[in-house]
Amino acid sequence: MTQYIYEKIAHKISMAIRAGVYSVGEKMPSLRFVSQHYGISLSTAIQSYQLLDNEGYIEARPKSGYYVKAWMTNYHAEPEPTLSSKTPATINIGQLALSLIAESQSKNLIKLGAAVPDQSLLPVRALSRTLAGVARKYSDLPATYEAVNGSLVLRRQIARLMRQAGCSCSPQDIVITNGCLEGLTLSLKAITKHGETVAVESPTYFGILQVLESLGLNALEIATHSTLGIDPDALQKAIESTQIAACILMPNFSNPLGSQMPEANKKRVIEITQQANIPIIEDDVHGALGYQLPRSKALKAYDKNNNVILCSSFSKTIAPGYRIGWVLTSRYIQQIEYHKFLENISTATLPQLAFAEFLAKGGFQRAVQHSIKTYRTRMEKMRRIISQKFPTETRISDPSGGFVLWVELPKTIDCMTLYKKALNKNIAISPGILFSPRAEYKNHIRLNCAATEEEKMEFALIVLGNLVFEMLESR
Amino acid sequence: MTQYIYEKIAHKISMAIRAGVYSVGEKMPSLRFVSQHYGISLSTAIQSYQLLDNEGYIEARPKSGYYVKAWMTNYHAEPEPTLSSKTPATINIGQLALSLIAESQSKNLIKLGAAVPDQSLLPVRALSRTLAGVARKYSDLPATYEAVNGSLVLRRQIARLMRQAGCSCSPQDIVITNGCLEGLTLSLKAITKHGETVAVESPTYFGILQVLESLGLNALEIATHSTLGIDPDALQKAIESTQIAACILMPNFSNPLGSQMPEANKKRVIEITQQANIPIIEDDVHGALGYQLPRSKALKAYDKNNNVILCSSFSKTIAPGYRIGWVLTSRYIQQIEYHKFLENISTATLPQLAFAEFLAKGGFQRAVQHSIKTYRTRMEKMRRIISQKFPTETRISDPSGGFVLWVELPKTIDCMTLYKKALNKNIAISPGILFSPRAEYKNHIRLNCAATEEEKMEFALIVLGNLVFEMLESR
Repeated sequence: MTQYIYEKIAHKISMAIRAGVYSVGEKMPSLRFVSQHYGISLSTAIQSYQLLDNEGYIEARPKSGYYVKAWMTNYHAEPEPTLSSKTPATINIGQLALSLIAESQSKNLIKLGAAVPDQSLLPVRALSRTLAGVARKYSDLPATYEAVNGSLVLRRQIARLMRQAGCSCSPQDIVITNGCLEGLTLSLKAITKHGETVAVESPTYFGILQVLESLGLNALEIATHSTLGIDPDALQKAIESTQIAACILMPNFSNPLGSQMPEANKKRVIEITQQANIPIIEDDVHGALGYQLPRSKALKAYDKNNNVILCSSFSKTIAPGYRIGWVLTSRYIQQIEYHKFLENISTATLPQLAFAEFLAKGGFQRAVQHSIKTYRTRMEKMRRIISQKFPTETRISDPSGGFVLWVELPKTIDCMTLYKKALNKNIAISPGILFSPRAEYKNHIRLNCAATEEEKMEFALIVLGNLVFEMLESR
Repeated sequence: MTQYIYEKIAHKISMAIRAGVYSVGEKMPSLRFVSQHYGISLSTAIQSYQLLDNEGYIEARPKSGYYVKAWMTNYHAEPEPTLSSKTPATINIGQLALSLIAESQSKNLIKLGAAVPDQSLLPVRALSRTLAGVARKYSDLPATYEAVNGSLVLRRQIARLMRQAGCSCSPQDIVITNGCLEGLTLSLKAITKHGETVAVESPTYFGILQVLESLGLNALEIATHSTLGIDPDALQKAIESTQIAACILMPNFSNPLGSQMPEANKKRVIEITQQANIPIIEDDVHGALGYQLPRSKALKAYDKNNNVILCSSFSKTIAPGYRIGWVLTSRYIQQIEYHKFLENISTATLPQLAFAEFLAKGGFQRAVQHSIKTYRTRMEKMRRIISQKFPTETRISDPSGGFVLWVELPKTIDCMTLYKKALNKNIAISPGILFSPRAEYKNHIRLNCAATEEEKMEFALIVLGNLVFEMLESR
C-alpha cells in the first residue's frame, strides 16, 4: 500500500488549512515555495495543489495562483472533551440497537445509521468468487470441525496484516472468530468475572456496552477527547479510585468519534495499565482505515508485556456478511480458545479458506487503498455540508479515519425525536444515547458517510439540518 | 423418507430377540407364520429375515430355517439408572474437553472419541458444490449483515424439518445460529441469570456443562435411565426441593446414552415443568437420527404453552464444519435474537443460502436415510464386540438412535488412565468424567461408532478390551 509523496504533502497542507494557519481567501504559498519547503519537485508540488483543489480546500484563480476556499474555515467546532463518570454504571440500552440494525436492512432508507459501508466500497464480489473456487477445491473439509483457533492459512495471513500494524506476532497468537463483536465477548470472558467493572471511552460503540451488559459487567466511562481519544490522566485517576478489571479502547479511529490516540498517549496508557496490571482489549476494527499512510500502529504494538488483547474483523473493510474476525494475544490465548470452543466450537471452514486466498493475493491492500480515499472525500463532504446547513451551535468531530462522524446538536435537540422524524423521511441515523451506558449524549447523533451515494447523502443532510432548525423553532 | 415395510418388521423382530422373546439357538417362526402374523406377503417376510440375517440377529441353516444366533443373548447388561445429585454443583471440567477436540483432529488416531461421524457418512461434498453455486449467484449479498435471525429461505426450510418432528411452527419462530452449542448459550442467556440452577440429565453432554460453567450457572443432575432418559419423578422431586431456573434435556437419542424418552414421559415432563413454570431447553441435535422411522416427535411437539426452546444443528447430519444450527421458540424469540446480535450480530450469509438450496432439493432426507442405516449396523457391531471382548461386569447402553455408546466398566477402572493408555495406542475415546459436573462416572467411557471404518473400529475395541483386562489384572 503506497501513498504518493504528493498525497502526503497535500494532507499536511490540508491540516494546516484546517488548523487555521491559512485564513479564508488568503493566497496560498507559491508552487516554487512549496517545492523548496518540502524538498519536492515542482511537478509534485503542482500535483499536491491539484489534489487540494479537488478536495475543496483551495481554488485556482487564473493568472494569480491558489487561494483558500471561503467555506473552509466555517467548519463547526469539535465537541468538547467528555467527562469521566463518577461511578460504574450497569447498562440498559434495551432493544434500540437491534431495531437500528433491522432498519439498516431496509432498502428504501437513506442509510446514515448503521456503521456499514456501501457495497460498492467493498470487494465482496471478488471474495465470493474466491469462496466459490475454494468450495469446489476443498469440498470435503467441512466434514470435520475446523480447529478451535481457526484455519492456519488464514491465521498466517492475519499475522502478516498485524505486523503492518506494528504487532510482532505469530499465527499461534491468533484465534479466528465470527466477527469482532464475538472477539470482544471472548476477551471479556477470558479476563473478567460477573459483577466487575470495565473502563470504556465516552462515547463508545454501543455493541461494547451491550456485551458488557449481557456479561453482567459494569461500565466506567473515562473522559475522551474528540480527536485524541481517551484521556490518559483521567484513566489514571479512575484506576486509582475504582477497582477496574479491564479496559476496552478503540485507539485508532474510534466509533463514534473517529479519534486517533497520539503515539505518546498510547505509550502512556500502556504504562498506566501495566503498572496497575489491568489488561486492555483493543478494538482495532477501523485500524486499517486511517486517512494517512502507512497505517497507524495499533496500541498492541507498544505492548511489551502482552497486556493487550487485540480484536478486529473484516466487516468494515471486505464484507460484513462473511462474519470473519480475530483475536490477537499470546498471554490469554488458552482462555480465548476455551471460550471460543464453548461459544460455537469453531468458525466455519470454507469462509476462512476464502479469506486466506483473498488476502494472499493482495486483496486486502487493494480494497483498503480504494476505500480509504472515498471515505476521506466523503467525510470531508459530510463535514462541509453540516457546517453549512446545521445551526451554528452544532459541533462535529474531525475523524482521522473510518467513516463515522459524531455530531453534537444544540442542547435542546432530543436525538430520539430527531431519529424518529428522520425515519419518517426515510433517513436512518444513530441516536447518541446508544453510545453511553447512562443514556447520555441526548443531543448527539452518529452519521455514516459511506453507506449511501454522495447525492443522496447531501440531500439527507440538508433534510436533517432542516429538521433540527424546525425543532429549535417549535420550542 | 420412507422405511420399507420389511425393514419395519425386521426391526420389530429384532426387538423381540433382544428382549429375550426368542432364546439363543432357538428356531425362528416360519416365513409363512411371519407373513400371516404381520399381514405381509411371503416375499416381504423373506426380505425381513434376510435383513435380520445381514444384521447378525439370525442365521439360516440349510433345509431347516432360521435360528437365533448364539451371541445375541450375550449382550452386556445396561448401566443402572443414575441418581439425582443432592445439591446443585458448580462445574469445573477444565480444558479436558478442548484437548479432546484437538486430538480428534489428528489424522493418525482411531477416532472413538469426539461425536463426529466419518466424512463418508455426510453429504458434505454435495453441500460444498451447492455453496460454490450460491457464492457465484449471490456474490454481493455478504456486503451487508444478514438479518439477525437469519436468512428467510433457510428458516422456511427448517420450519418444514421441524414440522416433521411434530412442531407446528413458522419461519418467524426460528433464529439461525453458528451450530447447536451457540443455540444452547443463547437460550440460557435468554431465560437464566448468573448464579441460578439448571436441571440436567445425568450423564449429560459435556458441552452443556461447560456452557453452564461459563455463564456462572449451577447444574443439578437428575436421575436418568439409560434407555428411557430422564426420570420424570426425579425431576418432580428436584423441582419441589430446589429453585430451578431451567432444564436442558436431550429427549431423543441423548448424548452420551442414546436414550429416547417414551411419549408418556415426554408428556409428563411437559406437564411438570409447565406447572412449575420452568422453561425447557431441548437439545435435538440427534433428533433425526433415530433407528426407527418416522422420526420420533420432539419434546417441543407436546408443548402447547411454548415452554420449550428447541436447539439443533446440521453438525451431526450434514457437515459440522459449516457451523449452521437453529433455535426454535415463539415465546422467547425476541430475547434469543437480542443475544444473537450481541454474540456475533448474525450468521454468515452464503452458508445459510447453500443449506437452504440443499434442503429444498431433499438433501437432508437423503443424507439421513443413508446414515441412519449405517449407524444402526455399526452400533450393533460395536455392542456385539464389546459384549464379546470386555469383562463381563461391563455394562453398555442400548441406543435407539445416534452414534454414541455409553460404557460402564468394572468399578476399579479409572477412565482417565484408560484414556491415556488408549491414546498411547492411537485410539481416542471420551472419558466418562466429562459427562458430570462433579466428575462422576470415573469408570465410564463414551464411544463413537461412526467416525472410523468398521475393521479399524473392531481392532480398536479389541485393543481397548485388552487394556481393561490388563488394568484389572495389574491391581
